[in-house]
This record gives sequence, C-alpha cells and structure tokens, in this order.
Amino acid sequence: MSLQIGATASRTKTITDADVRAFAELSGDYSPIHVDDDYAAKSRFGRRIAHGILTGSLISAVLGNDLPGPGTIYLSQSFQFRAPVFPGDTITATVELTAYREEKRIATFRTTCANQDGAVVLEGEAVVIAPK
Amino acid sequence: MSLQIGATASRTKTITDADVRAFAELSGDYSPIHVDDDYAAKSRFGRRIAHGILTGSLISAVLGNDLPGPGTIYLSQSFQFRAPVFPGDTITATVELTAYREEKRIATFRTTCANQDGAVVLEGEAVVIAPK
Repeated sequence: MSLQIGATASRTKTITDADVRAFAELSGDYSPIHVDDDYAAKSRFGRRIAHGILTGSLISAVLGNDLPGPGTIYLSQSFQFRAPVFPGDTITATVELTAYREEKRIATFRTTCANQDGAVVLEGEAVVIAPK
Repeated sequence: MSLQIGATASRTKTITDADVRAFAELSGDYSPIHVDDDYAAKSRFGRRIAHGILTGSLISAVLGNDLPGPGTIYLSQSFQFRAPVFPGDTITATVELTAYREEKRIATFRTTCANQDGAVVLEGEAVVIAPK
C-alpha cells in the first residue's frame, strides 16, 4: 500500500441517545453525566454528554474502514477532549497522514473530531500498521 | 474529594463476541480483523481480535464509576496497544493515581489493561477533572 503524506479520510455520524446508552452498557461506564438527566442538568454542561471514548471510536472506524483501511492494526491512539459532545450532535471524524515508514508500514495520523458547528471536540494522534 | 497518590481501582469484564459485534455497529468499525473469521484466520493473529478502543472503554468505566467516580470529566486519554485481545478474553482494567492538582481537581492516572494470563494488553494515561 502506498500512502501519501497529507492524505485524509472522514466519516460523519450522529451520536444518538441510543448510542450513548449502548456505549454505557458495552463499556460499563454509567457515570451520571452520561445517563442521568437530573444529575447532568446540574453539571457544568447543563445536560447529558456522550462518552469521550464513544466519540473517539469514530476515529477507529475511519482507520479500519477507509484509511489505511481493512486490516489496519492499531499501535496507539491519543485523545484530547476539547469540548462536550451532546446526544444528537453530528460528528465528523477525520484522519490525516502525517508520517509513514514504508519499510515497516507504520503510519501516523492526526485525528480530529468536529461537531455540526465545526467546533473541534476531540484531537489526537493515531499510529497504526497499514495493511499490505 | 481527596485523592491519594497511588490509589487504584479496577474492573474486570469478559469481552464477548457479542461485545465485539456491538462495538462494530456502534462505532462503524467493520474492519475484517474484527468481524470476518476467514480474513482473520489468515492475519498475523490467526483469529478475530477485539477493537482496541473497546478494550480501552473499560478504563472509562473505572474512571466514571469508581475512581475518581461519578461526575468525572475526561480531559485526555492515551492508549498503547501492547497485545491482541480476543473475543472471550477476560480483561482487568486498572487505574492508578500518579498526580493530583487539588486546586483544579485535575487528576492523572496510569491506565492498564491485562488479560486473564496477566499479560498487559493496553497501557496509557488518563487526565480527568475529579468530581467535587
């Protein structure tokens, strides 16, 4: 596989309330900021927020499906959570190739998630082994 | 909330095949290494593996439920994926407080996941705002 520095891929998904509840069940993270309306109403955000790792999982989908695509092996991922994601927000996850060691097929990507208003909600970096 | 450096909390969960398929649906990451037996049989792992971010989500559960607990706000998380997790593996996620800035309630944790054989499958660091 040949990878160009600067290559990008994106996916967009609306994170529904059902998604937040499914992630709570899957992960076991039932923090009330995610699942309890009354608690969340009194929090700094004023309402329930999606789990940060749920938002981050969209990066995994871009890497695994699109760029580098099927067969990608994750080596590392960092997430900086910049702003809250609320149930109903439409998130675009984008990866951009910033480095590639062709002999080992190790690819580094800048990873970003933005909401429907263009606000960056998550930044980070992924390092993966690209498929042959 | 008072937090002692060195404080730890853990959760253990078996990552089932149903969990892997639920995470594929939730994230949209249908890479065949996770969902296609024939493809995975020919891969370096010889069989399907769980998504790295699914394993990482157990860290979120420890932080959000246990330490620092309900109301925790994620600032950042890093994951280094050290070894594959297979459907059926029983994963223990552990967080250990390594730094705490009490005036801002910013807590830093070493985060680790190990499998049923004690092998470390994930390492990383979490930074959170601890609840009041």
